[in-house]
Amino acid sequence: MKFTVNRAAFIKSLTDVQRAISTKTTIPILTGVKLKLEAKGLTLTGSDADVSIETFIAADDNNAELQIEEPGQIVLTARIFSEIVKKLPEKTLTFKVTENYQTEITSGSASFTIRGLDANNYPRLPEIDAKERLTLKGDLLKQLIGQTVIAVSTQESRPILTGVHLVIKNGELLAVATDSHRLSQRKITLPEAKEANYDIIIPGRSLSELAKMIPEDTETVSLRISENQVLFDLGNTTFYSRLLEGNYPDTERLIPKTAETTIEFNATDFLSAIERASLLSHEGQNNVVKLVLDTPGKKATIYSNSPEVGNVEEELKFQNLTGNNIEISFNPDYMKDALRSFGQTTVTVAFTLPLRPFTLVPSEDHEHFVQLITPVRTF
Amino acid sequence: MKFTVNRAAFIKSLTDVQRAISTKTTIPILTGVKLKLEAKGLTLTGSDADVSIETFIAADDNNAELQIEEPGQIVLTARIFSEIVKKLPEKTLTFKVTENYQTEITSGSASFTIRGLDANNYPRLPEIDAKERLTLKGDLLKQLIGQTVIAVSTQESRPILTGVHLVIKNGELLAVATDSHRLSQRKITLPEAKEANYDIIIPGRSLSELAKMIPEDTETVSLRISENQVLFDLGNTTFYSRLLEGNYPDTERLIPKTAETTIEFNATDFLSAIERASLLSHEGQNNVVKLVLDTPGKKATIYSNSPEVGNVEEELKFQNLTGNNIEISFNPDYMKDALRSFGQTTVTVAFTLPLRPFTLVPSEDHEHFVQLITPVRTF
Repeated sequence: MKFTVNRAAFIKSLTDVQRAISTKTTIPILTGVKLKLEAKGLTLTGSDADVSIETFIAADDNNAELQIEEPGQIVLTARIFSEIVKKLPEKTLTFKVTENYQTEITSGSASFTIRGLDANNYPRLPEIDAKERLTLKGDLLKQLIGQTVIAVSTQESRPILTGVHLVIKNGELLAVATDSHRLSQRKITLPEAKEANYDIIIPGRSLSELAKMIPEDTETVSLRISENQVLFDLGNTTFYSRLLEGNYPDTERLIPKTAETTIEFNATDFLSAIERASLLSHEGQNNVVKLVLDTPGKKATIYSNSPEVGNVEEELKFQNLTGNNIEISFNPDYMKDALRSFGQTTVTVAFTLPLRPFTLVPSEDHEHFVQLITPVRTF
Repeated sequence: MKFTVNRAAFIKSLTDVQRAISTKTTIPILTGVKLKLEAKGLTLTGSDADVSIETFIAADDNNAELQIEEPGQIVLTARIFSEIVKKLPEKTLTFKVTENYQTEITSGSASFTIRGLDANNYPRLPEIDAKERLTLKGDLLKQLIGQTVIAVSTQESRPILTGVHLVIKNGELLAVATDSHRLSQRKITLPEAKEANYDIIIPGRSLSELAKMIPEDTETVSLRISENQVLFDLGNTTFYSRLLEGNYPDTERLIPKTAETTIEFNATDFLSAIERASLLSHEGQNNVVKLVLDTPGKKATIYSNSPEVGNVEEELKFQNLTGNNIEISFNPDYMKDALRSFGQTTVTVAFTLPLRPFTLVPSEDHEHFVQLITPVRTF
């Protein structure tokens, strides 16, 4: 096995596959990156058994300057190999496997020899037999992931809640996540996939890694779904994730249909006020902020306190406060996550009763995106 | 006590004094920042007993917009107070101490009340009785600190070596640090201080903090030295450090006067090569890189290896190799620190014997700056 390649292009490929490689794995060969050189180009693979990532450098990719001298395959410890490649002196590097999996990496006058592993022992990637290919806009998929993974559970006690539930039917994709204290739901239309019908749960961690890999300028991402795997195709990079098994709870009934009190905030201003209040709530044992809405008095105020440190009070700017007076207490960290997911926009917050979940939706579009938060009992 | 102040100017002052404040202190009041408001302005103080920092916001400083309503003093927990000030919504903040050291901090519609401590219990800063004031260029002091603190010992077994030794006499300042494996020595002229005569040891940690506080555009820093304290005056900021007691070892005799082999490298290129070699030396138990100089063959090569991972070899670019052949092994981390302290320049490396210390000096100026490294025995 021998090739020469542009170092910057190679580092980009290597960095992408490294997202799937964990140093904590119990399977030693998975601390490695697999390199496979064929006439059509070079394929790099990384995997932690849950997520696998494959990148491809084509023989005819001008930027990559790939010169194939002798095909072959090898597995190299990803951490040290990547440190070496990043420190090499010249614009290109030459890679050569000699006997006993010894691998020479040279660039300019620097020459490294490191020990590799037999690539035949590297696990095979899952086979995706699904023919159907759904396409999504890259930026929309990235946004959908960002808006839902925040509500994924980090507790392994109910593994199913560590995933995002995706339901594809009637030309729509509905994504829901909940850790049972809060819920995020986002809906997008898939006009080209009217016949598609899927109900899957993708681990939240997989989606977070995937979102980091979608470049800003990606036109479309295509996906294929099989029994227990999903594959995202990002052009020269392929992202595989296993699916979670089991039935996701019915979340539709959790979202209140009516409201007793509604108010509109600028998401960014409201976020800043919550961040201030949480400085004190974080000092105490109860991480709670209280919001008091006085409808006739046209006032919205937040409060928080820590017995050891002190207290904070802030009157909020708002629009369109209507309905009953209400006093409601909640975890400010959930509110911060929810507000950040809206970006710069106006949100409508709708309440029923002090101990019932309340919702946040974009004022301009109530239909496609909702964040739900369960209040905290403080008495 | 009551005042209003520009938030950005106040944050700058607060950030500077916080450098002296440790959350780990055993004296609870030292986790606080002291604020003292007088007719002439506002003084902030932070201290960890070794280092104390005082900043002053003058009543007539236009940028600070200080409005003094009622003089007084208070101590507030630095961490939470600074978090609050940084998150406040408006350009200015109002600060008011009411009864029982309760302190109100308001900005726009946000109002925090936190508990303060009696400033009368805050330790007094050391009194510096020295009249003599030495002045140094700010950038030169910063450079001198950066070039010497790298060799300060981090081990408490010989406390004296955790400091930088400063000798001021005959219109010269000599700074030396050594951890007994390496040594850094820098000399600067003090033409205006021909009569001054001092021999002190300043803790390396104090100097590192001081260097961070010297702004790029500082014209001069003045210092005054007393029995057991040194004071650096940076304009509106005053930096106090205790001195280390004891006799610093005689380091002059450690620096070789002659050389058997000399070679010149571009410091940046040599640093890159050492960084590459150290990737493998860091993987093994012996963190050692070997340099082989072949004078008749006109070759300079570095080697390193890790039995588990592999090896590296690189032929170096150099100028003016003269003298005996030599093979020498050293800790690459010491070499990296030393080379970084030279910046973009050509260094002359001078060797005597494989187990004797070798030196690095700027090729353009052999007199004022030297880095010394003791080799490692590998056989």
